Amino acid sequence: MRYVLCVQYDGTNFSGFQRQVGKRTVQGELERAAKGLGATRVTGSGRTDAGVHAEGQICHFDGETSVPPERIAPYLNALLPPDLKVIKSAAAPEGFDCTRGAKKKTYVYTAYEAACALPLKDRYAARLACSPDLAKMEEAARLLCGEHNFLAFSSTGSSAKTSVRTLYDVHIVKNGQTLCNEYKIFVTGNGFLYHMVRILAGEIFAVGCGKSTENIRRAFATGERSLIAKTMPAAGLTLKEVDYGVPLFGTSGEG
Amino acid sequence: MRYVLCVQYDGTNFSGFQRQVGKRTVQGELERAAKGLGATRVTGSGRTDAGVHAEGQICHFDGETSVPPERIAPYLNALLPPDLKVIKSAAAPEGFDCTRGAKKKTYVYTAYEAACALPLKDRYAARLACSPDLAKMEEAARLLCGEHNFLAFSSTGSSAKTSVRTLYDVHIVKNGQTLCNEYKIFVTGNGFLYHMVRILAGEIFAVGCGKSTENIRRAFATGERSLIAKTMPAAGLTLKEVDYGVPLFGTSGEG
Repeated sequence: MRYVLCVQYDGTNFSGFQRQVGKRTVQGELERAAKGLGATRVTGSGRTDAGVHAEGQICHFDGETSVPPERIAPYLNALLPPDLKVIKSAAAPEGFDCTRGAKKKTYVYTAYEAACALPLKDRYAARLACSPDLAKMEEAARLLCGEHNFLAFSSTGSSAKTSVRTLYDVHIVKNGQTLCNEYKIFVTGNGFLYHMVRILAGEIFAVGCGKSTENIRRAFATGERSLIAKTMPAAGLTLKEVDYGVPLFGTSGEG
Repeated sequence: MRYVLCVQYDGTNFSGFQRQVGKRTVQGELERAAKGLGATRVTGSGRTDAGVHAEGQICHFDGETSVPPERIAPYLNALLPPDLKVIKSAAAPEGFDCTRGAKKKTYVYTAYEAACALPLKDRYAARLACSPDLAKMEEAARLLCGEHNFLAFSSTGSSAKTSVRTLYDVHIVKNGQTLCNEYKIFVTGNGFLYHMVRILAGEIFAVGCGKSTENIRRAFATGERSLIAKTMPAAGLTLKEVDYGVPLFGTSGEG
């Protein structure tokens, strides 16, 4: 019997999603907790790097238990640490695979501009070294949307066969606060290369701070990584949701 | 020479503001960092409890240094830990005292309703056991505004001579999110008793979940603590700003 989980974690104190011997990982903690349900492996929709957060990561596992599917979340939560919880659980649809079945993923990258590092921001956001212009950031966002070869927007180490991906939506929300301006870049796509969202976000902020968008056009054509900004810090990145085109957790649940 | 500081901290790993032997406190860390500026004591606008955060706490100290007033913030930040930073610094106005001079303080209490504890919320918010009605919460907020005897809204241990305080504004912002509803209660007043904001917030949420507002009226009249809700957890509370009726950090700074 296959079960599907919606999982939230604060990535600060995890060495990423993927199981690693001797390290505290999301997958490792989930597999330890799910043992009593007959599970040997818990699979995720994709890996997240060390320090990256997830609001609604989707996982599945094969198990055998008398615990009703919707009670698996509280069962696991009793065994999981405070920085990793299962928000929803259900019996998986026929033939469901959380990795191969993912149609769209949405990430959000959060950054702020302030005169110094802000203790109440740093856990879930990166600090900007410049003061970006929203209209320019939106121009970069529009250029990035669509089907492109994102090779220049990835770090080496990507195991992907092709670096062509489609971004369905890239938009920015600016939130002026008392002590800082906060920017959230929402990115929805059919898949992402290694470090791709953190690099995209870096380039959008760079364009906002005066860099020409010509680099984006040339990077699509040439695949040249050096044309594009550096990878932004992990703390600012959150995997927001994964879309399978069908509801997984009943009518009021996630898509 | 007296200096004024605007200080931000994540209260999670502090045993509160006030210096205590052998404990990690905000005041203790500030005084350790300010030693090189000739300071022996750093005073705050008021104490915050263990686990309570501050977005813009105001402090002052007397010192003697050749560091220009506005450069004291970066000087101190080089010596302070990541969860405690000085956002702004300036020479204090003539006769300034950050404790006695505080005219208004604004706190914000954050809570959320969700089926389980959410790792990305728990650091700065409390989880509600019920699903509150916003209109009812606003009714409670209106009743609490104004000058009242808040004795029933305080924990024993308050050293205050009188328990009469004035609340200038109590308002609630509800923010519907994918996986939870978040509520922020903003409270501005001329002063607060021990645990007062956490108790006020608890009563507002209780009224939102069906408790009669009659208890608030009776509590003002009788001072009976048992009529009012329990103290909410520290993690949800943030001291937002302190108002002295004059700008402290130049024209673009805090009031």
